Amino acid sequence: MVAAKIPKVTAKRLPIYYRYLNMLFEAGTKRVSSTELSEAVQVDSATIRRDFSYFGALGKRGYGYDVEDLLNFFKKTLNQDRLTNVALVGVGNLGHALLNYNFRQTNSVRISAAFDIDQTIVNTIQSGVPVYPMDELKKQLEEQQINVAILTVPIDHAQKVTDEMIAAGVKGVMNFTPLRISVPANVRVQNVDLANELQTLIYFLDHYSE
Amino acid sequence: MVAAKIPKVTAKRLPIYYRYLNMLFEAGTKRVSSTELSEAVQVDSATIRRDFSYFGALGKRGYGYDVEDLLNFFKKTLNQDRLTNVALVGVGNLGHALLNYNFRQTNSVRISAAFDIDQTIVNTIQSGVPVYPMDELKKQLEEQQINVAILTVPIDHAQKVTDEMIAAGVKGVMNFTPLRISVPANVRVQNVDLANELQTLIYFLDHYSE
Repeated sequence: MVAAKIPKVTAKRLPIYYRYLNMLFEAGTKRVSSTELSEAVQVDSATIRRDFSYFGALGKRGYGYDVEDLLNFFKKTLNQDRLTNVALVGVGNLGHALLNYNFRQTNSVRISAAFDIDQTIVNTIQSGVPVYPMDELKKQLEEQQINVAILTVPIDHAQKVTDEMIAAGVKGVMNFTPLRISVPANVRVQNVDLANELQTLIYFLDHYSE
Repeated sequence: MVAAKIPKVTAKRLPIYYRYLNMLFEAGTKRVSSTELSEAVQVDSATIRRDFSYFGALGKRGYGYDVEDLLNFFKKTLNQDRLTNVALVGVGNLGHALLNYNFRQTNSVRISAAFDIDQTIVNTIQSGVPVYPMDELKKQLEEQQINVAILTVPIDHAQKVTDEMIAAGVKGVMNFTPLRISVPANVRVQNVDLANELQTLIYFLDHYSE
């Protein structure tokens, strides 16, 4: 049985649930109540119950959820049981940090190829990841069956490099540049705008604190 | 006149509008239609008009919005005209990258102090930012009137360091660790969970692409 399409807001919370359940499982915990779960992941328990109901995972009253069952379910849902290779384009400061960032923690995601124009790092291995020249983008993405790329180039190059990535078959872009890149309708962009996040935090502190 | 409290979803878009308007202004553009704005920032024009109406900024039919007027308005709203100092706690790979990250682009935000326990970098200047030992946290935050901190410590230290930061007066935390940190009700947390973002992107590609 394939799970029905779930709402976006629910989908966004899945990796959070997953990571917490994994922590519980590793600690040997057998079951968890929606109240405990709620406190840990900071999502109210009514929302958790609703989220879980999309998967037919209904906790038993007075027992809660079986950690291992839930975990197996999420693993399947999030494809944690198969490895997804992703590319990183732009090995500057942020790119370097992301090569070292432990994306694999509880996820089966791995940066398997990096790309840059800097001749001093092209054809070297940085933090365990090979750095290829940009003109090998299409070839490497095809060979490694990669269709997701992390974009960490300077803003002036962001659109041009995006166009190249899409021509090379990229279908999902995690965009760390502040540019709102233009992509065809069949390409998905996840914007991670750090300056925007920080600005929003400060704005809220200034306007909404008691 | 003080603007009324605006909805969260609108507040989240303000920095995006601001950055784009700033680009237009620097390029010498005098006015912009909501359609143009909509295409550039990828927010539909009805939403833009509604967002702007919270500030009493009503575009003129057939003219659009005056770029400089809008920009001045946003500057005031986002406090772009005063500098906000923030701290960075944890100068590892990601911390280093963030010290180099150009938060100031169009924002008046500056990382003015970093903190770490690593004796080899404590009391040095990294990417222009002084790195203090953790036991100077309270003193430095008070002296520099900082109440916002970026948290980039290893996950095992995240809660302990959060508690220290809050004891030192921090009211807003930009949390880059995958831990959902516990904070008092008067402290605001902005979670930036990069593994989660990437996982969500992959999930969407697997389930929602045509």
